[in-house]
Order: sequence, then C-alpha cells, then structure tokens
Amino acid sequence: MFRNLKAVGRILYGRNSFDQLGDVLGELRIEKDSYVLFLVDEYFQGKDFMKRIPLHTQDILKIIEVKDEPKTKTVDAIVAEVKSLRNGLPVSVVGIGGGSVMDYAKATRLMFTNEGSSSQYQGLDFIKNKGVHCTVIPTISGAGAEVSMTTVLTGPVKKLGIKGNFTPADQLVLDPALIASVPDPQRFYTAMDCYIHNIESRNGHRKTVMGDSLGTESLRLLEEIFLCNDSHSPENDEKLMIASYLGGLSLTYAEVGACHAISYGLATVTGIHHGLGNCVVFNQLEEFYPEGVKKFKEMMRINNIVLPTGVTANCTPEEIEQMIDVSLTLVFMWQHLCGPEWEKIITREKLRGLLLKM
Amino acid sequence: MFRNLKAVGRILYGRNSFDQLGDVLGELRIEKDSYVLFLVDEYFQGKDFMKRIPLHTQDILKIIEVKDEPKTKTVDAIVAEVKSLRNGLPVSVVGIGGGSVMDYAKATRLMFTNEGSSSQYQGLDFIKNKGVHCTVIPTISGAGAEVSMTTVLTGPVKKLGIKGNFTPADQLVLDPALIASVPDPQRFYTAMDCYIHNIESRNGHRKTVMGDSLGTESLRLLEEIFLCNDSHSPENDEKLMIASYLGGLSLTYAEVGACHAISYGLATVTGIHHGLGNCVVFNQLEEFYPEGVKKFKEMMRINNIVLPTGVTANCTPEEIEQMIDVSLTLVFMWQHLCGPEWEKIITREKLRGLLLKM
Repeated sequence: MFRNLKAVGRILYGRNSFDQLGDVLGELRIEKDSYVLFLVDEYFQGKDFMKRIPLHTQDILKIIEVKDEPKTKTVDAIVAEVKSLRNGLPVSVVGIGGGSVMDYAKATRLMFTNEGSSSQYQGLDFIKNKGVHCTVIPTISGAGAEVSMTTVLTGPVKKLGIKGNFTPADQLVLDPALIASVPDPQRFYTAMDCYIHNIESRNGHRKTVMGDSLGTESLRLLEEIFLCNDSHSPENDEKLMIASYLGGLSLTYAEVGACHAISYGLATVTGIHHGLGNCVVFNQLEEFYPEGVKKFKEMMRINNIVLPTGVTANCTPEEIEQMIDVSLTLVFMWQHLCGPEWEKIITREKLRGLLLKM
Repeated sequence: MFRNLKAVGRILYGRNSFDQLGDVLGELRIEKDSYVLFLVDEYFQGKDFMKRIPLHTQDILKIIEVKDEPKTKTVDAIVAEVKSLRNGLPVSVVGIGGGSVMDYAKATRLMFTNEGSSSQYQGLDFIKNKGVHCTVIPTISGAGAEVSMTTVLTGPVKKLGIKGNFTPADQLVLDPALIASVPDPQRFYTAMDCYIHNIESRNGHRKTVMGDSLGTESLRLLEEIFLCNDSHSPENDEKLMIASYLGGLSLTYAEVGACHAISYGLATVTGIHHGLGNCVVFNQLEEFYPEGVKKFKEMMRINNIVLPTGVTANCTPEEIEQMIDVSLTLVFMWQHLCGPEWEKIITREKLRGLLLKM
C-alpha cells in the first residue's frame, strides 16, 4: 500500500513575494471577526521586518522562542491562550521563522481541532480532524519543515513528529530575500540539516526514484553553494531555499537515517538544537555515509566552521543509555538504513561508542 | 506580482499503485448516486487493463480518440453528453492516458461548472468557477500534463491552453508499471516533449532557480535514460515518469520557448501530434538551442529514431503564413526566449525559413 500523499496546497515563490502576504491572507478573511494567528521567530523582535507583517487589529501575534526545540507543552499553551482570547478559530496560523517556528505553526493549527494534548498525537496518522489553514514562511532554510508532512516535537516521553496527511501546510511563501540576514554558523548548520536529509534518504532501503531524484538535485545545489567561496550571496540564498524545499520533499518519498535517529536521542537529553546536533552526529558517521561525511568535512573547512566538541562529555552513563533508548525507538529510520535485520548491526555498544566520540 | 501557484493536491506514487484507485475514488463516492466519469485512451480498448478500472454501475466510461490533438468541441460534447445522461456532477473526472487524455480530463471537469464553450476560456485566468474533482493517471510520460496548470486545446481560432489556478488536477496517480507497454517511437516522441520543455525553460528570460533546478534534474534523468542502450527497462520507465513530472513542474516556474511556439503553428494547420511535432521542429532549432539540439540528435541516433521529412512540403504558401500567424501570437514564449525586443529577432522570414526545412 502506498500513501496518497497530500501536497502543500499553494506556493507563492519569488524575491520579495512576502509583500503579497496581505493579499494571500485577505482571501481568507471572509467574516468580520476573522483573525490570523502569527507565530514569529524571536529573531525578528524589534527589527524593521515586524512592520512588514500584514497585521490586522483583531489578529494575534506571538513571538516564539527557539532556543529549545519545539515542545508539545508550548503548542498546547499557545492553543489554550488563543482560545481564551478569541471566539472561533483563526483563519490561518502563520509561522514566520525557521524549522521550529514552522513546526509550531503546523502543530498548533492541528490542535485547534483535535482534543487534548499534542503529545497524544506524536507518531504517524494519529490526528483525527483536519486542522485550520496554515501558512509557513521560512526565514532560514534547510530543515525542510516548509514542505514536510511532519512537525517534530519533544513531548514528555519522546521526540517524535506528528506525521500524516493532515500535517503539511496549506500555503507556502518562498521569498529568498527573507534569508539574507541569517547569521553564520546557524545558516550553515541548518543548511546541513538539508544536506544530511539528502544523504540519508539516498542511502537506504526505502529509496524511491522520486525521492532519489529530488535529493540528487538538492545535493547538487548545496554543493554548488557550500563548495564555493561565497556561500552567502543573494543567488546562493535562493539556491539554498530551493535546496531545502526539494530536500524536504525528497524525505516524503524516502526516510531519514542514522544521523536523525542518533541526534534525536542526543537532543532529548542535552536539548542540543536540531541543525547543530545533526552536524555533531553526522561528523562521526563515516561508517554509514563515507562519501557524504567526506564532502561535509570539506564544506566545513571551506566555510570556516568549527564544531563544538565534548557535547556528551558531561553526561552521566544513565544519560548516555537514555540517548540510546530514544535512538533505538526510531525503528523506521534504522530499517531504512540497514534493512529488516538492523538490530544485528545497530547495537547499544555501537551507539554508545559513537555518542562518546561527540 | 508573483502567482500564488496551486499544486496538484494529492499524489499516489509507486509501482502498481493503480490498484489503489478504487480506494481513492471510494473516498469521494459519498452520496448513493455519486458517479465517476472515466476518460480512457483508445489504446486500452479491448485490452485486459480495462478490467482493472474500478468502474461502478452508475459510472460513465468514455473511450477517447487521440489521433488528433484535444479539441474544444470534443470537450464541449463530452460535457453535454454526460449532463444529458446524469443528474448532478461527477465526483471525479478521471483521465487515464497520455497528455491528450489528461488534458481532456482537466478541461472537461472545468466545463461542468463554467458556462458556455471551452473555447471561450482559452488563455490565462479566464475560468471563473472551481471545477469538479479531477484525477489524472499518465500511461505515457513526457507531456507533463499530469502536473501542469494548463490544458492545451485546439479551438475554432487558436491552439492555446486553458491556463490558471483552477486547471491543475486534484489527484495524481504515478504508477510506472502503466507505461511499460508504450510502443516506440511514440514513447520517444513524448519523452522528448519533456526534454524540449526543459531546454526551453532553462534558456530564457523568465528563468527562475526553482524552474531551472527542476528542469536540471529532469534533464539528468532523460539523458540517463536515452543516452544508454536500454531506454525501455522498468527502471527507466520509472525514471521517465519522474522526469516528466519534474519537467512539467519546471514549466510552472518558467515558460516554454521557440519549439512550442512554432509547433503550435505547425499543428494548427497540419494537425501533427504534439510530441512528434515538437521533435520535427526542435530538430531545426540549433540556432536557439545549440547544445540541446546536439544531444537530441544523439539520443535519436542511439534509439534508432528516424523523423518524418517533408512535413510542410504539401502546404500552400497561405498555410505557411497561417502557421507563422499562430506562432507569432505566442508572445510570452518569444519574450521568454528573446526578451522584450523579440520582434527584432523573430521575423516572419526567419519562421518561414525554419518551417520550410521541416
């Protein structure tokens, strides 16, 4: 059985297309008391960009902290707060930011129409009801949240996406001008999330021609950007935005692998940010992805990136075991990489050895 | 102003995914008297494949002749016939076939909800009302109709698409097993429609990073398929299906060019089939696309393709002028290729010279 995949409904793409957001949302503001819920990355607080957001009197704008990975309890709190402030549902939940903010928007909009806590819905196809309209606007590129069918959340017991056909956004705005000001090394780490997706999706048993093809082109763009000496030009911003889109889409037709499985474990205990965490993990995965890791190191060198070391140095043995526990729950990622007999290859010893190198 | 593009809503992809069509349509058959309108390529008449179509008692299945390019009068006739046979609208119009059948499905579904003749709507954004649900299932790959925002029709006065956000299909089924039996050289000509799209979209002023990127990957796949000595393997069928999808999508972010502009003129008078017509025209366009034409000739050689000659030999001078008239109406294609001053380059003499070589 193949999944009948739901695509992101509409795509507004072009430099400065953000200025058309008012028109896009205007089509949804049908009733007099229609309101939009904007979730905006804290990065923009106090910046001129805020004035460009087409905010109406009745709208709600929330600044979203992104120091920590998105949490189910934050999703639940936003929904509860908005419900206490307004009658009726927002006509769109608009996420303006990176993968975390877009994931918050995608998850929040589902929890307006599904009972209880978002932690009850972590996993595949647990959502029962269609959410409210959701608009995502990346201002940093790489995570692929703008196009993915998942919204990765850390809950009380697990870090796992709310995944399924109800999750993709309804509207995407791809404006390459918005990612011009992303600081390094954050830009690099997030871009490498995309690079790693592509390497993982291509190297595994659940590979498809579609996934492979989208991943191939995304990789080609990323190598063009980060193996040259001017990775931060406007032209490369646009290429990075497209690479992220294609890389995210590639995952819909394949699966992530070892890096995500281990970095989910690492993040659950250390709270390390997803992009950085993936880089720290991927740097140690020559065994699984020899070519990909080699090129990754070359891109780090050219872009003067120095990864933190000793990330697990202060962890207790119990914490290391907890990381391993979380990693081993991500069976579908390991199956993609190693096939049905994955447990013979991916032992606790192997994972422990890798984690202690990080 | 950028267009807020509407995507194909859902994609069911995988070898033998066609066998899930019954489930996909089942979700739409809500009322007791719900019916589906199937438009099926005449190629399948009398073949075992017909038994696999999930036909219910109340459904209507029409065999579609594809010797001629899709015509507005045929669209109008199908809609009139179905309206005379059933109360209410079909829950989906399903096109099973090549570009022509998919275009018929996309156009027919619009004419159930828009008054008058389909010829009134040829052009960009003339459609007023959302059509009924539309499912497209390619059984030959290359035209890109499975993903495009246009449905090319020959009307009483022009050959031009009904183009806009109402045109893309709602559901796409990509089953590479369905294109296994496509005979050569038809398979080659249709695949080259995609090749030509990619060359045209990349070489022009309306080029975008997204369009270029999708076109680059589509080209890479096509070269892998047709520059090897076994272009018709199951693996290459799947690659061709994906190349067509990505190539069609590429056009959404760019534009076709000289080959389509001239071949539309050629087809209006001679009725030559789109895939073949494009090959006949493209073969003479070294001036505009030197690299692309060179590789095209190499692919023809490897695949033992011999193009017909003397296609315009029996045309009267008036007919040649009529072809030129039609070509010159396609201003946006010429602007994409040559920029705003295109009329200085694309003269009647130049077009006449090219047409007489075909």
